[in-house]
Amino acid sequence: MAGREPVARGEQARRRVLHAALDVLADDGMPGFTMESVARRAGASKATVYRHWPSASALLVDAMDAEFRPLADTDTGDLRADLVSLLTRFASSLADSPFPKLMAAFTDAAERDPALGDLHAELTRRRREPLLRLVRGAVERGELVAETDPELVVDLLAAPFFYRRLIAHQAMPADMPGAVVDHVLASLRRTAG
Amino acid sequence: MAGREPVARGEQARRRVLHAALDVLADDGMPGFTMESVARRAGASKATVYRHWPSASALLVDAMDAEFRPLADTDTGDLRADLVSLLTRFASSLADSPFPKLMAAFTDAAERDPALGDLHAELTRRRREPLLRLVRGAVERGELVAETDPELVVDLLAAPFFYRRLIAHQAMPADMPGAVVDHVLASLRRTAG
Repeated sequence: MAGREPVARGEQARRRVLHAALDVLADDGMPGFTMESVARRAGASKATVYRHWPSASALLVDAMDAEFRPLADTDTGDLRADLVSLLTRFASSLADSPFPKLMAAFTDAAERDPALGDLHAELTRRRREPLLRLVRGAVERGELVAETDPELVVDLLAAPFFYRRLIAHQAMPADMPGAVVDHVLASLRRTAG
Repeated sequence: MAGREPVARGEQARRRVLHAALDVLADDGMPGFTMESVARRAGASKATVYRHWPSASALLVDAMDAEFRPLADTDTGDLRADLVSLLTRFASSLADSPFPKLMAAFTDAAERDPALGDLHAELTRRRREPLLRLVRGAVERGELVAETDPELVVDLLAAPFFYRRLIAHQAMPADMPGAVVDHVLASLRRTAG
């Protein structure tokens, strides 16, 4: 193989490896997740994979992070609508994509390997940020009561979707995000006057 | 080995196998969970294990069910206190025991094997029953508003503990059960008059 790839081709290879990493994790779980198996799945050389990531853990975190990106920031000023919109996209990634399989594999692996547990915590923290920002903003502008614990509120908002999909194995009807948001906000709204 | 064991010894062996099953699952995950490995860990013969369970799946469900039992029924008539008491015991089993490791292993395995997914759903359903009964009772006697969706309320109550322990890897402070219950009940209480 000759010299350095141009930037565009390098970026293309990087994305192909990220996709392959998620495929390997979804199909084989953590035990099968190695630099070799990902390179093979991506049709790339091990050298290409090592050019972008120093270790399988670093690759895994980037791949999971890329998968989490759909939960991008949104702040229209309508708290309920913004929360429902974020949670609807979240519920749909839990319903349709390899995301739940990846989450389950990561959850199990994190119990057996403390370093992966730390990575899992960090990924979850990143994924919570858009929700957290919305809740904090609403407290700052007085829409939610000052005693609100934003971290707990985000737990209450996000957790039922994980739980229903991964633990209870029940359907997430289309009105679930709205119902969850209404339940959680009801106790936090400042009443007028 | 000779003849039938007396009932008491049979029951003792059964419990030893159930304990060994949880140990094997916690240590090795689902890939290592076989009738052979459980029998070996229990110091029992494979015949003893097969006398009580037809398959590894049946053994697994009984073992997980035994581990879930601490969430026994309680109904003092004080809804908040009863919910806090159940969730406190639940949080403590998620914090201290092999339970979270078992849950994580089962969660991952359920994604790969639909039959295990059904078993996981059934175990979760059983574990939810005491909470569900309390919420339904409170609706029936008019303490919670009639529009309450008991299943969603139980999701909101139970999910944050799984999520914090298995997904976010954050602490569950001693006041978390009370804070979760207060948040969730706030929107459901019938206001006087």
